[in-house]
Amino acid sequence: MVFKRITLIGLGLIASSIALSVKEKWKKVEINGYDICPNVRKSARKIKLCHVKDKLNEAVKGANLVILCVPVGQIPEVIKDLSEEITSEMIITDVGSVKLSLIESLVPILQEKMNCFVPGHPIAGTENSGPESGFSGLFEGRWCILTPQELTDSNAVMKVKNFWSSLGMNIKIMSPEHHDLVLAVTSHAPHLIAYTMVGVVNDLETVTESEIINYSAAGFRDFTRIAASDPTMWRDIFLNNKKAHLEVLGRFTEELFSLQRAIRREDGDYLLKYFKRTRDIRKSIVEAGQDTKNPDFGRN
Amino acid sequence: MVFKRITLIGLGLIASSIALSVKEKWKKVEINGYDICPNVRKSARKIKLCHVKDKLNEAVKGANLVILCVPVGQIPEVIKDLSEEITSEMIITDVGSVKLSLIESLVPILQEKMNCFVPGHPIAGTENSGPESGFSGLFEGRWCILTPQELTDSNAVMKVKNFWSSLGMNIKIMSPEHHDLVLAVTSHAPHLIAYTMVGVVNDLETVTESEIINYSAAGFRDFTRIAASDPTMWRDIFLNNKKAHLEVLGRFTEELFSLQRAIRREDGDYLLKYFKRTRDIRKSIVEAGQDTKNPDFGRN
Repeated sequence: MVFKRITLIGLGLIASSIALSVKEKWKKVEINGYDICPNVRKSARKIKLCHVKDKLNEAVKGANLVILCVPVGQIPEVIKDLSEEITSEMIITDVGSVKLSLIESLVPILQEKMNCFVPGHPIAGTENSGPESGFSGLFEGRWCILTPQELTDSNAVMKVKNFWSSLGMNIKIMSPEHHDLVLAVTSHAPHLIAYTMVGVVNDLETVTESEIINYSAAGFRDFTRIAASDPTMWRDIFLNNKKAHLEVLGRFTEELFSLQRAIRREDGDYLLKYFKRTRDIRKSIVEAGQDTKNPDFGRN
Repeated sequence: MVFKRITLIGLGLIASSIALSVKEKWKKVEINGYDICPNVRKSARKIKLCHVKDKLNEAVKGANLVILCVPVGQIPEVIKDLSEEITSEMIITDVGSVKLSLIESLVPILQEKMNCFVPGHPIAGTENSGPESGFSGLFEGRWCILTPQELTDSNAVMKVKNFWSSLGMNIKIMSPEHHDLVLAVTSHAPHLIAYTMVGVVNDLETVTESEIINYSAAGFRDFTRIAASDPTMWRDIFLNNKKAHLEVLGRFTEELFSLQRAIRREDGDYLLKYFKRTRDIRKSIVEAGQDTKNPDFGRN
């Protein structure tokens, strides 16, 4: 472990999982942390997650690596607040689910210090949030995407890459534009659609809430998991990856209308053909170790 | 157990789970089975699921309870084929996910024997299908909806009710119209939307399949589970519950457009408010014992 002193800003699921993973492997690494919310700091202190500081600049002082784990819309503000603490010895990275707009917004703030910022996104998580939701196995076998710029210090990229690798992650380097499109498809659109489905159900007058709950095992409950994710985090994601979202949502409604029309016209052949081609991708995901092979996610 | 001889028609996930559950509790009950597909009969025989017959009428002869476990579109055909075997001692029920159109289509076939048909729907399953996918715990703690008609023999309803109760199910009686609406919301629409999302991903030119697979843990993989369900079964469901589906899908697209507009207009308050109200329903589902409280469905 090349980093002796790590600072975590925003003590939620990702930061607490980093802290627990690092502590499990390297007992000597110093981990400092800060969260803007006093209650979160209190909870983090209670479980002895890391050295929790009451001020942002105290937490960052002397760090080799600063990992920004706040919702993506709050990152520019945090960078502004700690800009005087940033030294040339310091590497800064983030875990945000949107990259292009974030990078663009940091250029005028970081200016010549932009070379020490390695934009990153470890693709791991659960529907839970807060400092008590973390666990040390979260990153094992998952993928981390880094989107460095031409000006990013290549040594810093290498070190951040090694950091995530050492926590069990596979690393992929790509452009921020491509990252944002890939994530719009694999993460953002599924979340928005899950939120929508749960919203529809909330609004129905003709079906009672207890009916929804009791019969949710027929499919609906699968959607409620990701729709239970942190609202602020998701608001920021949707505000910061507009172009890719509108593209993917446009395609989604097109497809949905084609199926809706097939239902209206009672076109069984179209429906059967459509439903047949979707099994293979599940199989590939399971084979790639990205989901359990047990039926029903192994719930039973 | 009031039924001494049970016949299962269509030897998939539900029938094989019934066979295993009944055998586990009542060793003396005779279970006969039939499937139109010779390969399915062969597989069922290989695992000694039940007494597998090569002809439909052989399987049904002398049964006290006949459970139709074929896709809902095939039920009228099956009933036609076995109509001469149906006696007044026999109770017939089904497990189909659509009730109103099924009942309407059976009236002219069953005629005066309609009173022995108890329309039913045990709400349980996994994404797997076929005789090898069944297991004895499938029905435990889940709900079974029965939609008897005025003319249905009340003694038959009571017996079918007790049958599912004895396999661990909670029972609810409701009208077929209401069943179809409730299931459109809790099951059919979520499945169609999951199929759509997987379809969108299949068609993208700008994102590779390996990218989809590797980064699927960010949300998308949740959708692939229900989109891996049996295509024929789902085609039949969508062809037979048209009115309720078009109603629910109409509401879904309305909601999705409202969120899409909020993204376009960068209306963060609208998004945050929307995302905040969806957490409670997950909590209620978990509290009602209809999903695991473990994060990520307990996958890790």
